[in-house]
Amino acid sequence: MNICIIGIGLIGGSLAIDLKKNGFASWIIGVDNNPKHANEALQLGLVDEILPIEDALQNVNLVIIAVPVNQVARMLPRILDQVDHRTFITDMGSTKSNICNIANAHPKRQNFVASHPIAGTENNGPGAAFSGLFKDKMTIICEKEKSNNLALKLVEKMYQGLEMRTIYMEPEAHDQHLAYVSHLSHVSSFTLGLTVLDIEKTRENIFNLAGSGFASTVRLAHSSPDMWAPIFNQNADHLSEALGAYISHLQNFKNLIDNHEEKKLNLLMKRANGIGAVLQGSEE
Amino acid sequence: MNICIIGIGLIGGSLAIDLKKNGFASWIIGVDNNPKHANEALQLGLVDEILPIEDALQNVNLVIIAVPVNQVARMLPRILDQVDHRTFITDMGSTKSNICNIANAHPKRQNFVASHPIAGTENNGPGAAFSGLFKDKMTIICEKEKSNNLALKLVEKMYQGLEMRTIYMEPEAHDQHLAYVSHLSHVSSFTLGLTVLDIEKTRENIFNLAGSGFASTVRLAHSSPDMWAPIFNQNADHLSEALGAYISHLQNFKNLIDNHEEKKLNLLMKRANGIGAVLQGSEE
Repeated sequence: MNICIIGIGLIGGSLAIDLKKNGFASWIIGVDNNPKHANEALQLGLVDEILPIEDALQNVNLVIIAVPVNQVARMLPRILDQVDHRTFITDMGSTKSNICNIANAHPKRQNFVASHPIAGTENNGPGAAFSGLFKDKMTIICEKEKSNNLALKLVEKMYQGLEMRTIYMEPEAHDQHLAYVSHLSHVSSFTLGLTVLDIEKTRENIFNLAGSGFASTVRLAHSSPDMWAPIFNQNADHLSEALGAYISHLQNFKNLIDNHEEKKLNLLMKRANGIGAVLQGSEE
Repeated sequence: MNICIIGIGLIGGSLAIDLKKNGFASWIIGVDNNPKHANEALQLGLVDEILPIEDALQNVNLVIIAVPVNQVARMLPRILDQVDHRTFITDMGSTKSNICNIANAHPKRQNFVASHPIAGTENNGPGAAFSGLFKDKMTIICEKEKSNNLALKLVEKMYQGLEMRTIYMEPEAHDQHLAYVSHLSHVSSFTLGLTVLDIEKTRENIFNLAGSGFASTVRLAHSSPDMWAPIFNQNADHLSEALGAYISHLQNFKNLIDNHEEKKLNLLMKRANGIGAVLQGSEE
């Protein structure tokens, strides 16, 4: 099967490696508006060739859009315009309401499968791609009834080949949930980084003292701004609600510290410990 | 050398393993007010015997206090009372001002070395102890000029044997810095856990959607409340300042999201990315 992957970064590149490896793809065409990334993807052997998008969309069975969500929104109508009825399209975007709304306004909506594989690291670019990124993770397909049945089956088969578990959700529910379990923790990590960088200006060598706990909490602060700013923007309402709840918990915690309420702090933390048990019930 | 370790949990147990392994200790007496932990430490072979504290303090060269900081504050004067002038004492506490103030009020202050090895995991108890916890990490000794020179040399030698790098700081500076690079990230993680647990009550299966990024950010929320509540309480002033700065960054981030200021968000995150470069300059 001929596949076109638009955006050969961490996600697109890791897909390319494993879809080739498991035989799902026989020929992979890469598209990337960053010539350095395009060249790197070719040299790393992630893709078989690099083409301009117009040429890449001809004679492929599946187009995978793996670019930041603002670019998905911009490109999707144009791609749907250009493909024939036998070419199917899916996206990897971390927000779904905005992208589904755009797809729903297009006459070729049924060629498109809206999806979001929940996988990634704080690194980006073709050099960050690796085999196994998706294995044993969860993927979400939204509004499956709006996709052509063949398109849906093809994308489901692709995720199955990557050893992912597929679940189905409405775009609004997806965005609401992801605000809490993904987007919020990215904001908490970015702002923790900012807070400590501020203080570091005036207090030398503070980072000598940072333990592995700090490194773990701030890991997501290394993530790509070009990927995350559009996600935060498209999911502003849900994320704002989650941030409001988080700030309110922090303010409460700070008040207890200010009032030396050690016992109440202890009880709150015992409750927070419960996150461990709940997370063990999840896939990772 | 005969050593007494008070508190055979993650820290005390890991110390016991490596101090025996590297020959620093020939006989290790464990003290733990939790009989289950004491028994477990003995069965795991972490210590050679378990004794009540009064007996354990006799005929040992070094007493290592590895209990929560409120208990360090409570026990330290009593231990100093009981040991003879040839027995030295050090602690592993994550706060130093309070503990040093208490030590400074005791006539045998010079038998004591105030220290803090920056190492740990989110787990606790003797079962969490492992060899290598301290290797290549940083340790801090405070007010070294107030310790007997032999005591100081002994504790420095112990840390050297664990392959740690020792630095020297004033207790106040220690507490200020640790508020930012350790205590703050624990609060951010505990409150992130609380925020998501709140939402989970009403939204089923939200945790199916949690990726590895969330797990990493929330890892410290598994930490022991009995260890952390006293740390937050003893370091309330510095931690409150750090939390105030963090909340203000979060509020600013939320405002930008509410106003769809995508470019400004992008710039802020680019600045946060700088934490990566700074952390690489540190030990872990």
